[in-house]
Amino acid sequence: MSRKKGRLFVISGPSGTGKGTVCAELLKDIGNEFSVSMTTRAPREGEVHGKDYFFVSRDEFIANIEAGNFLEHASVFDNLYGTPKDMVLNRLERGYNVILDIDVQGGLQVKKSHPEAVLIFILPPSLAELRRRLEGRGTEDAEKIEKRLGQALNEIKLIGEYDYYIVNSDIDEAAALARSIMAAEAAKVPESVRPIIREYEKETK
Amino acid sequence: MSRKKGRLFVISGPSGTGKGTVCAELLKDIGNEFSVSMTTRAPREGEVHGKDYFFVSRDEFIANIEAGNFLEHASVFDNLYGTPKDMVLNRLERGYNVILDIDVQGGLQVKKSHPEAVLIFILPPSLAELRRRLEGRGTEDAEKIEKRLGQALNEIKLIGEYDYYIVNSDIDEAAALARSIMAAEAAKVPESVRPIIREYEKETK
Repeated sequence: MSRKKGRLFVISGPSGTGKGTVCAELLKDIGNEFSVSMTTRAPREGEVHGKDYFFVSRDEFIANIEAGNFLEHASVFDNLYGTPKDMVLNRLERGYNVILDIDVQGGLQVKKSHPEAVLIFILPPSLAELRRRLEGRGTEDAEKIEKRLGQALNEIKLIGEYDYYIVNSDIDEAAALARSIMAAEAAKVPESVRPIIREYEKETK
Repeated sequence: MSRKKGRLFVISGPSGTGKGTVCAELLKDIGNEFSVSMTTRAPREGEVHGKDYFFVSRDEFIANIEAGNFLEHASVFDNLYGTPKDMVLNRLERGYNVILDIDVQGGLQVKKSHPEAVLIFILPPSLAELRRRLEGRGTEDAEKIEKRLGQALNEIKLIGEYDYYIVNSDIDEAAALARSIMAAEAAKVPESVRPIIREYEKETK
């Protein structure tokens, strides 16, 4: 029985909730592929062009918007981020699940153009814990962290637009739950059940 | 964050697909409870009254129908089967997931009165394999097995009314997928998201 069509999953959540780590875990599974985003922000230490992001200039990014090359794009903390459309659609057509690690606004844009996309929201155990994680990362000053916490709460207020939520208290448990969600989505009875029924009917002919 | 309300799961599928074994696996998990059905059929060897079924006379069964005591009831191969309502509702209220091992017609009755119930259909890998399993059980003659295979195909034709399907080729994989479905259902964003948002908002006060 064919279950071969790729599915589009969006993993969102406030900065610092560990959604990147959840995505990295899912990408260890056969059949799941990532989509590399484009951004105008500066690379962090260790980030690789074409693997973590396509790092481009503001002018290049805007040219891509104008050409309609993005599935979604957004401005986050004065930087632009976007998901190249062709990369995602090619992979879905080839039967891979595509996992998008994008912010909440981007997730909502994807849902609008692709209602069949499955949206998963990663929540921190608490804002206090989120603050500890952001401080521990040591990449941002106090002012930026406050800005992120305010932004986190604003994003959480949009959770009602999402399909599933995962509280990330433990990365292994969070990844396991994300895998369960993906497995359950693949086990949903499809709108057209004729192909399933036909498999059994043809045995009786 | 409270995720405490019990959920109602219906596991159905043609006789011989192994839905009973899948249910038995799920009942090993904490928080999941079974509902013991009532039946007029004769106990098979090893079956225990009050554990496998409540074995009752036809008169007693009909009295229970008339008293409105069933969540669903059906006639299958000249025997009556029913799910006592009070047992299920009590367990859901106490926060347990209730797993009903019932036939397809019964599943549809439950969905009608409890639209929030999650219906899972267990499929055999093929009708040929289903025949082998029924023959291997050695409890029914050839005529009864033919009747069951015809009934199996009729039930499979109703799969479109179900939420999820599992092809039971391997019992461990089938049980794992059923667990994933239960976990994913518990991770669905609820209709009312205010309680979730409030958890984070109150930290900022």
